[in-house]
Amino acid sequence: MSPKITTELLKQLRQVMKTPKYVQEPVQAYIVPSGDAHQSEYIAPCDCRRAFISGFDGSAGTAIITEQHAAMWTDGRYFLQAAHQMDNNWTLMKLGLKDTPTQEDWLVSVLPEGSKVGVDPFIIPADQWKRMSKALRSAGHDLVPVKENLIDTIWIDHPERPCKPLITLDLSYTGVNWRDKIVALRSKMAERKVPWFVVTALDEVAWLFNLRGSDVEYNPVFFAYAIIGMNTIRLFIDGDRMMDPAVKEHLQLDSTLEPEFKIQVMPYGSILSELQAVCASLSPKEKVWISDKASYALTEAIPKAYRYLTPYTPICIAKAVKNASETEGMRRAHIKDAVALCELFNWLEKEVVPKGTVTEIVAADKAEEFRSQQKDFVELSFATISSTGPNGAIIHYKPVPETNRTLSVNEIYLLDSGAQYKDGTTDVTRTMHFGTPSAYEKECFTYVLKGHIAVSAAIFPNGTKGHLLDSFARSALWDCGLDYLHGTGHGVGSFLNVHEGPCGISYKTFADEPLEAGMIVSDEPGYYEDGSFGIRIENVVLVIPAETKYNFKNRGSLTFEPLTLVPIQTKMIDVNLLTQKECNWVNDYHQKCREVIGAELERQGRHEALQWLIRETEPLIRVQ
Amino acid sequence: MSPKITTELLKQLRQVMKTPKYVQEPVQAYIVPSGDAHQSEYIAPCDCRRAFISGFDGSAGTAIITEQHAAMWTDGRYFLQAAHQMDNNWTLMKLGLKDTPTQEDWLVSVLPEGSKVGVDPFIIPADQWKRMSKALRSAGHDLVPVKENLIDTIWIDHPERPCKPLITLDLSYTGVNWRDKIVALRSKMAERKVPWFVVTALDEVAWLFNLRGSDVEYNPVFFAYAIIGMNTIRLFIDGDRMMDPAVKEHLQLDSTLEPEFKIQVMPYGSILSELQAVCASLSPKEKVWISDKASYALTEAIPKAYRYLTPYTPICIAKAVKNASETEGMRRAHIKDAVALCELFNWLEKEVVPKGTVTEIVAADKAEEFRSQQKDFVELSFATISSTGPNGAIIHYKPVPETNRTLSVNEIYLLDSGAQYKDGTTDVTRTMHFGTPSAYEKECFTYVLKGHIAVSAAIFPNGTKGHLLDSFARSALWDCGLDYLHGTGHGVGSFLNVHEGPCGISYKTFADEPLEAGMIVSDEPGYYEDGSFGIRIENVVLVIPAETKYNFKNRGSLTFEPLTLVPIQTKMIDVNLLTQKECNWVNDYHQKCREVIGAELERQGRHEALQWLIRETEPLIRVQ
Repeated sequence: MSPKITTELLKQLRQVMKTPKYVQEPVQAYIVPSGDAHQSEYIAPCDCRRAFISGFDGSAGTAIITEQHAAMWTDGRYFLQAAHQMDNNWTLMKLGLKDTPTQEDWLVSVLPEGSKVGVDPFIIPADQWKRMSKALRSAGHDLVPVKENLIDTIWIDHPERPCKPLITLDLSYTGVNWRDKIVALRSKMAERKVPWFVVTALDEVAWLFNLRGSDVEYNPVFFAYAIIGMNTIRLFIDGDRMMDPAVKEHLQLDSTLEPEFKIQVMPYGSILSELQAVCASLSPKEKVWISDKASYALTEAIPKAYRYLTPYTPICIAKAVKNASETEGMRRAHIKDAVALCELFNWLEKEVVPKGTVTEIVAADKAEEFRSQQKDFVELSFATISSTGPNGAIIHYKPVPETNRTLSVNEIYLLDSGAQYKDGTTDVTRTMHFGTPSAYEKECFTYVLKGHIAVSAAIFPNGTKGHLLDSFARSALWDCGLDYLHGTGHGVGSFLNVHEGPCGISYKTFADEPLEAGMIVSDEPGYYEDGSFGIRIENVVLVIPAETKYNFKNRGSLTFEPLTLVPIQTKMIDVNLLTQKECNWVNDYHQKCREVIGAELERQGRHEALQWLIRETEPLIRVQ
Repeated sequence: MSPKITTELLKQLRQVMKTPKYVQEPVQAYIVPSGDAHQSEYIAPCDCRRAFISGFDGSAGTAIITEQHAAMWTDGRYFLQAAHQMDNNWTLMKLGLKDTPTQEDWLVSVLPEGSKVGVDPFIIPADQWKRMSKALRSAGHDLVPVKENLIDTIWIDHPERPCKPLITLDLSYTGVNWRDKIVALRSKMAERKVPWFVVTALDEVAWLFNLRGSDVEYNPVFFAYAIIGMNTIRLFIDGDRMMDPAVKEHLQLDSTLEPEFKIQVMPYGSILSELQAVCASLSPKEKVWISDKASYALTEAIPKAYRYLTPYTPICIAKAVKNASETEGMRRAHIKDAVALCELFNWLEKEVVPKGTVTEIVAADKAEEFRSQQKDFVELSFATISSTGPNGAIIHYKPVPETNRTLSVNEIYLLDSGAQYKDGTTDVTRTMHFGTPSAYEKECFTYVLKGHIAVSAAIFPNGTKGHLLDSFARSALWDCGLDYLHGTGHGVGSFLNVHEGPCGISYKTFADEPLEAGMIVSDEPGYYEDGSFGIRIENVVLVIPAETKYNFKNRGSLTFEPLTLVPIQTKMIDVNLLTQKECNWVNDYHQKCREVIGAELERQGRHEALQWLIRETEPLIRVQ
C-alpha cells in the first residue's frame, strides 16, 4: 500500500478556496466530512471525497485543509491504514488519544484572525454544524456554507451519481403497501400537529415507498428525498428509472388515485428549492418535521420557528418493528443463508485440513458463491470479514492481498458475513477451529458463548432499552478479567441496511428507543487477543413476547428468538464451564438448526452439507 | 391530615407580586422551587417555602402561582399526599402522566401576552433557569430574577436560618487535612488552567474544610459557600461559631500560616458581591469554575466568557473516593450500626410475637434508641422507613400516627434506616417475617436476594459506570415477570450526606462517573406488591480491586465488599431457588457477620443479641 500523492490536488484545492467563482469570500479552511447528503453509513464512489483528496479510504474520517495544513481525524480502527494511505502533506489526528485536539480547537490554533471556514452544507449534519459554528464564532471565526462542493470542482474524473434501476416490492414482502405507510405517517404527523415531513435518509425513502435500489454497495437504496404533506407527496429522484413500467405501476403514477396519494416526481437536485417553497407557504404554527441528523442545508432551509426536530423519525421507528410478512421474509432469508454457510463450512473442512490452500479471500469468495446460489439473492450486506489467526483480532478486518492469510489447522478462523435477499437481510458470525483448539482458546470461546446466550435468553420488561442488556453479554468475560471493546448488537433492516436504528444493544448509547416485539437486532459479543486470535458469535435475533410466571403491573415481558440458524462449533466449547441451563440452550438451538436447516438442505439436495450439519449439531453432554 | 388553608396567603403573595418595593415590575407568575440556595436534597425549615405556601411538604415539588391560578408539580410518590395537604386553591400537576403539561407549557397557556415570570435567582439552578427562560422567551414572555424572596416577605414567623455549632474532624477521621485538600483542588484547577473555584454544595464545603454542622436535619452540614483562588481562600459563613476556639484552632485562623492557606471569613450573604468583585478583577482567559447545578444567581454573576461549568466538581469526585481513614471509619460505623440492629431485631422478636404491641413508630424509635447507645452517634442519616404489610409497598413511606400499623406475625416488616456517626454514615434495609412467610413471599424475597448478590459479587473492569450494573440486580425478577421501579444504588458520604454523587447504580442515568476503588454505594434491589408487602435488601458496599484470572489490556477489575454486616433473614429464603454460588455467598456473608459483629456484641456485653446473631447466621444448606 503506497500513499496517494496529494501535493498537486491540495494546491488546486487551496486555489479554488479563494476563487470567487466558487466561494463568495475566500475561505481559509475547508472541511471534508466522511458522509453523503443523507448521512449514510455506506456511500457511493461519487461521495468518497475525503478518500479522493487524502487517499485515506476507511469508513470514518474527517479532513480539514487550511492554507498551510492538511489534517485527518480518524479513530483507532484506522490509525495504521490512514498512516499508510496518506502522504506527508497530511497530519494524522488520532481520535480518542488524550493529546489529540478536537477539530474546533485545532482550527482555532492554526487559523489567522477572523477566518472563514467553508463546508458543503449538504454533507455536514445540522448538529455538527451547530457545534462547530459555535466554537469557531466564539474564537472570532466563521463557519460558512460553500454551495459548490470544492472537491468536486477539482475532481476531473468524478464518478457520476449512480442512478440504477429500482426494484419494486409487493405486499408479500412488505406486508403493508406504500399508501398505507403514508396514511400511518400522516396520522403520526396529525398527532403532533406537524403538516409536513421531510424524508432524508435513503433507507427511509426506500422503506416508505416499498422500493429498493442499488446506488450504494451493500445497502439496497437509491438516491432520493421525499416531502410528505397532509395531501401531497413529492418524491425527488433522478433518471429514467421512474419510466420503468413496473415502477410506474407500483407507484400508480398514471392511475387516477385520490389526490392525496398522487406522487409528484421531481429532480433529485430540486429538494432544496422545493423545501424552501413549502416553507414560504407555511402559516404561523405550521411546522416541518425533519430528523435532527439531516444536513445543515435542508435544516437551515426551514426557518427556525417552523422546525420540528426529532432524533428518530416516525419512519425510522415504524421501519424497525417488522410486520408478519417482513418477519417471515427474514426467516426465509436466514434459512437460505444457513444453507450457504453449512455448504461453506463443510467445504472448508474438506479443503483446509488436507490441502491448506484456502486463503481468507478464497473463503470469502466461496461464501458469496454459495449465497448467490440461493433464491432471491441480491448482493452481500457488507464486506465479508474473513480472518484467521491474528487477523481475527482486527475487529473491522477485510482481507486484501497484502494481508491475506491462509486458513490452517493451527489457527482460529472468524467469518462475519451476510447477504441481501429480496426477502431479508442477514448478518452472522461464526468462529471455528479446523484442528485442535487450545484450552485457553476454548475457555475464551465459552465465555463469549455464555455472553451470547445471556442476551439471547434474557427476559426483560416491555419498555426496556437495549443498552440495559449489554452487560449481560460481558458478565462471564468480566468474571475472568476479560472484555471486548465494541457494542453487543445493532438493529437489522428487512432487505435494507444491515445497520439501522433506533434500537441496539450497546453500553455506548443512552438514546436508543425501547425494544418491542417485532424488532430485529444482532447479538454479537466477542473476545480479541491482539496478535493471536479473534472470537465472535453473532446471531440475528427477533424480539418476541415472553411468557412469564407473573406479570408486574401488566407490563408484559419480551425475549429473543434467534433467526440465524447456523451451528456453533461445539469443538470450541468447554462444556464444563457451561451451566446446565446454558448447555440446554445450545442443545435446543442445535436441535432447531438440525430440524429447520436440515429440512431445507434435504429439499435442496445438499446431502453432504446435511451430513455436516448433523455432525455439528450433536448434543453436548455436561459431565458434572 | 387536613389541607392547609391558603386563600389568604395566596392573596398576600399576589399582592407582593405587584408591589414595587419587592419587584421592579409586576410579575404575572411566581415560581417557588423545592430547594435551597445550595440545591440540597434535605432542606432547613427556613427553606421550606413551597410547603409554607401550599401545605404540601413532600421532598419534591414545584409551585407556580399566577394571578388566577396556583399549581403544584410533583411525582408519583406524592400524588396522594399532595392531594391531601393542599386546599382547592391548588391544581395538582401529576408528573409522569401523559396529559400533564410541563411548567413552561402550562405558563404559556395561562399567561396574558408579554408576561413577566418571577423566581428567586438563588433558589433556581442555572440549567433550569436556562430551559425555562428559553421556553418563555420563545412565547413572548420573560423569566425575571426577583431579588427578595416573595414567600419570605409574607411569611410572618419565618424561621431563622440555622447557625448551629460546628464539629471539627481531625486527621484520624478524614485522613487528609484541609490544607492538603486545598492543595489537591488547586492542582486540579491548575491542570485546567482555571484560577478560581466556587464551592456551592453544602457537603462540598463541609468536606473541603473537614468541618461538620447540624444546620439541616440528617445531613451534617452547615450553611456556607467558599471561593478558592490559587492564593486565597474565602469562606462565607455566619454566626459566632467561627469564634469557637476548636474551630479557630482547626482552621488556624489566628496562626501565621502561609498566605495561600489564610482563610478570610466573610458573611454568608456576601457571596454574590464577593464573586462579582472576583470576576471584575479577572484578566482575559481567566475562568471561574462552578458546578452546572449551582444557582442562577451565582452562575449569572460570572460573565459568560469567564464561566467554566462541569456537571461534577473536582471536590465531588475526590469526596466520593474514600481514603483509608474514611474507609476504616465507615467500617467502624457499620459495625456499631449492626450491633444496634441485632439488638433491635432480637427485641422485636421478643416483643412482636407474644405481645403484638409494637407499632411502626415504636420500632423506629427503638432502632434510634439502640443506635444512640453507640459511640460517636450523632443523629439519624434519614427519616426511618419502618413499614409493615401494605405500608411496605410505599417505597418512600415514613410512619405517621394516621398510617401507623402494628407489627404482627402475619405480615412482612421492612426497615430502611441509618445513622450518622462521627466516623461514618450508614444506610441499611432488612425485610423480615416474625411468623411464617408464604411460599410466594419467600419466592419474591429470594429473587430480590439473587439480584442483591448479583450486584454485590459482580466483577467488572476499571472504568465501568455504575449504571451498567443495574440490570444484574433485576435479572432474576425479570425472568419471572417482576421488577421494581427505583434505581439500585446511590453513593454514600463519609459522615456526610447519605445520598451523594457522582456515582450510583441506576438505569435512569447515563452521566454517572466511573466506579473506582474506594467509592461507596448502596446495593438495594426490591420488590413491591401494592396493597400487600414490600421487600428490599440493602447493604452499603465498598468498591475494591478484584483478583481475576486474566487482565485484559491491563485495565484491572473491581468488585464490591459489603460494609453492612447485618444478617439477611434466612427464614425468608427459598434455598432451592439459589445457585450453589449464591448459597455460598450468603453463608460467607453470614460467617463474616458472626465473626465481626459477634466479637463486637461480645465486647459490648450484649449476650442476648449475640445469641440472636448466632441463630440468624446458621449456614443455609442446599438440598439439590
